[in-house]
Amino acid sequence: MDQELARSWLGTALEEARAGLAEGGIPIGAALYGPDGALLGRGHNRRVQDGDPSLHAETAAFRAAGRRPSYRGTTMVTTLSPCWYCSGLVRQFGISRVVIGEAVTFEGGHRWLAEHGVEIVLLDDPACVALMRDFVADHPALWNEDIGA
Amino acid sequence: MDQELARSWLGTALEEARAGLAEGGIPIGAALYGPDGALLGRGHNRRVQDGDPSLHAETAAFRAAGRRPSYRGTTMVTTLSPCWYCSGLVRQFGISRVVIGEAVTFEGGHRWLAEHGVEIVLLDDPACVALMRDFVADHPALWNEDIGA
Repeated sequence: MDQELARSWLGTALEEARAGLAEGGIPIGAALYGPDGALLGRGHNRRVQDGDPSLHAETAAFRAAGRRPSYRGTTMVTTLSPCWYCSGLVRQFGISRVVIGEAVTFEGGHRWLAEHGVEIVLLDDPACVALMRDFVADHPALWNEDIGA
Repeated sequence: MDQELARSWLGTALEEARAGLAEGGIPIGAALYGPDGALLGRGHNRRVQDGDPSLHAETAAFRAAGRRPSYRGTTMVTTLSPCWYCSGLVRQFGISRVVIGEAVTFEGGHRWLAEHGVEIVLLDDPACVALMRDFVADHPALWNEDIGA
């Protein structure tokens, strides 16, 4: 896909991540875009804010997009490589593409998704790396809880 | 594990599935049990009831169990073989065991979980099979929506 568009969409996910940080939460954000480029849903990790371990950034964006008969042609944009839980979401619902801010601080299932036909756009974005690197250094126990480590 | 205990725990998940059906929802139920056999959380698919595509039975039970530092030794009990989304949840959070009512009407990721060290107990329960078989026959579009097919 067009790199400028991918970076623009990543901006939405990064806004979500920063909103989560400002709320005292885990700074991971995501957004789901339709085949026509319309924003379908956006969200961020809500473990701390809602005491809800099921709302990772990707599942929050997926939830915000509501019920849909098909995800063909949609793109999940996330600031961080999707964990197995969120990679499973992408595979099960047939989300066509994943735009990823970075996979330096955590590598989830994006290679597995690529093997199963999902288009992966890995941007290696310095702002996303810095956000997670600082967060993990400051809150290692909370981060481990969020990834079941 | 002890088959009688597994069937007893499946009863909890089946109660949840039937509660979902009575609400007009998709009849899949789940429960998360602790290493000591304590019930940590239970729930059922809420796509129809809440208009929420992110709440499969397993994610609903996981959510109901709240924040936990570790899932080591826990068992996810579900009336139906877990889809990729729910299999990813099990793998990411290190849930040790999955008790499955049936994998006849739908086969999710339970073989993949077994390959990655999760203990799988497949009960092939006739009541679970009948519940899903009737539901899929009556509501094929809703079922396809729930699994992104």
